Amino acid sequence: MSRFLAALRRQRVDTTPVWIMRQAGRYLPQYRATRERAGDFLALCKNPELAAEVTLQPVEILGVDAAILFSDILIPVEAMGVPLAFAEGEGPRLEAVKGPQDLKRLHVPDPAAEVPFVLEAIRILRERLPAGVPLIGFSGAPFTLATYVVEGGTSRTFRRVLSWMYEDPASFRDLLDLLAETVTAYLQAQARAGAQALQIFDTWAGVLSRRLYREMALPVTQRIVRALAPLGVPVILYVNGCAPFLEEMAATGVDGISVDWRVSLTEAAQRTRGAVALQGNLDPLALFGSRATVEREAARVLGEAPPHGHIFNLGHGILPETPVENVEALVEAVHRLGKKEI
Amino acid sequence: MSRFLAALRRQRVDTTPVWIMRQAGRYLPQYRATRERAGDFLALCKNPELAAEVTLQPVEILGVDAAILFSDILIPVEAMGVPLAFAEGEGPRLEAVKGPQDLKRLHVPDPAAEVPFVLEAIRILRERLPAGVPLIGFSGAPFTLATYVVEGGTSRTFRRVLSWMYEDPASFRDLLDLLAETVTAYLQAQARAGAQALQIFDTWAGVLSRRLYREMALPVTQRIVRALAPLGVPVILYVNGCAPFLEEMAATGVDGISVDWRVSLTEAAQRTRGAVALQGNLDPLALFGSRATVEREAARVLGEAPPHGHIFNLGHGILPETPVENVEALVEAVHRLGKKEI
Repeated sequence: MSRFLAALRRQRVDTTPVWIMRQAGRYLPQYRATRERAGDFLALCKNPELAAEVTLQPVEILGVDAAILFSDILIPVEAMGVPLAFAEGEGPRLEAVKGPQDLKRLHVPDPAAEVPFVLEAIRILRERLPAGVPLIGFSGAPFTLATYVVEGGTSRTFRRVLSWMYEDPASFRDLLDLLAETVTAYLQAQARAGAQALQIFDTWAGVLSRRLYREMALPVTQRIVRALAPLGVPVILYVNGCAPFLEEMAATGVDGISVDWRVSLTEAAQRTRGAVALQGNLDPLALFGSRATVEREAARVLGEAPPHGHIFNLGHGILPETPVENVEALVEAVHRLGKKEI
Repeated sequence: MSRFLAALRRQRVDTTPVWIMRQAGRYLPQYRATRERAGDFLALCKNPELAAEVTLQPVEILGVDAAILFSDILIPVEAMGVPLAFAEGEGPRLEAVKGPQDLKRLHVPDPAAEVPFVLEAIRILRERLPAGVPLIGFSGAPFTLATYVVEGGTSRTFRRVLSWMYEDPASFRDLLDLLAETVTAYLQAQARAGAQALQIFDTWAGVLSRRLYREMALPVTQRIVRALAPLGVPVILYVNGCAPFLEEMAATGVDGISVDWRVSLTEAAQRTRGAVALQGNLDPLALFGSRATVEREAARVLGEAPPHGHIFNLGHGILPETPVENVEALVEAVHRLGKKEI
């Protein structure tokens, strides 16, 4: 079994596996070249050949232990009936769902018919990936997708989505339910197409109070995790700002949780009592200094992590301006410093 | 003694006191009118008469239990030698301190000579405030001020400031030390001019890991709190995203900690073991719905708070678009629902 899957199952590994959130991304010149050929970001997401190409780049260039499908978390949302565009240098723009009256615009898409390019990219990747480098599929979690759908893009304050939630929790739950059904079918299809692990990104759930996380974000996530269980594909859950929710996240039944950089892995291990593998949690900004800093900070994360059941990663997606040589140094340092006694 | 000061000292009160972070602000039409007269935001900060006027507005309009001096956290930074401007509708723009070589540009300002308008506004306010409504002075904490100084404004990623911190912690500590000296003198001067409580805003410290909070942000904050102790003026510490640091914040020796909306006050009370008063922690977005939502959410916060030693507030500053009638409803509801048995 690959290092990555072994660690996710909390089994012994020869050294700590490492991959990087957004590893197929703008910091890589090779990625920028392929994206240029695709035309634009959305065209790249929808071109299985080129999406597979950029997915493979960090495996070849950096030697990471897992590949993550190149795509965007809004792909299934567009398929639900929410028109989507990316302006150059800006974030996504969606035709926002402003309230309960707009819910009838949405449907639960059939992945094979409506996002076939995602499943095709997975099939291509399973043929081309080297043995020992598993493919991770992914989706946004319902609450995080709801923030984009209701705000019409990224947000600093999440005013619209949280006002709806406070004011009319029943219809907001209808939206979450629709999203949960969509995510479930989407992840099931990815697993069936060949994804060997799945990561659920509830990136923005950290804006919620612990109570609202429990009431709103958690139940739908839990439902998705349960629906995936029969497929036997391990699942990782990520929340940026997870400190208040570590116990809840571990209780969803996922195999691993991906921890942002604010809590130490020591604390995360204590609070989750060894029930899950831990992924993370280097501060993405630790990659902007010298090679010595990268190595020092990597060593610190390894020192705080449990010896097994740890997958090295960043605490959040890698930033576009990150120097590539520091990412190379990171992967090398993790493999060297993470070696286990046999 | 006023309700606010009694609660801050964890003494009995007739009902829960309430004030609102950024209560003198853009959501109030009266504020917008005064700001118009002042010319612009920075001119308003530097005009003691008009700054006092907007400070008094929420006391008169809403009936809050404390006034907080109207000013900006960057006022002492400008006095240190960092040129500052506010473009209309945008955040602050500072001539950034980019690294250790720029530190010699900075000095520790003498508040009486370099920010006399702040102290003058405090003196005016102490004459005009009704009995029972204390005046809160404030400052940014060194780490939070450092983010503005190094980034040259607000930031989403804090890339420059955190890169400096990772790469050259020694010179970054020099910057924090300069800021700590500045903040200490600034808050001491505010207390001597008549401020009856002081709040330290370490708004952005929530981007730090717990370890870096302990190593970087906490020691300088603690030094300030110790230097203020002989003045006998109670101090409140605020961090947005304080969940990982509640224990550390309570151990600084402050009288109260201001808790964002993500952790419940029940959890905050348990983790701080009654050592400090708790301020907070309504989600500012709970004020965007109906009056019934405002009342329901206020009741929930009161239900989670300890019966004494609680000052009602938001978990973050009030947003400019907040409907005034909901803020009025909030203050009324807190006073009515917070009544204590005698």
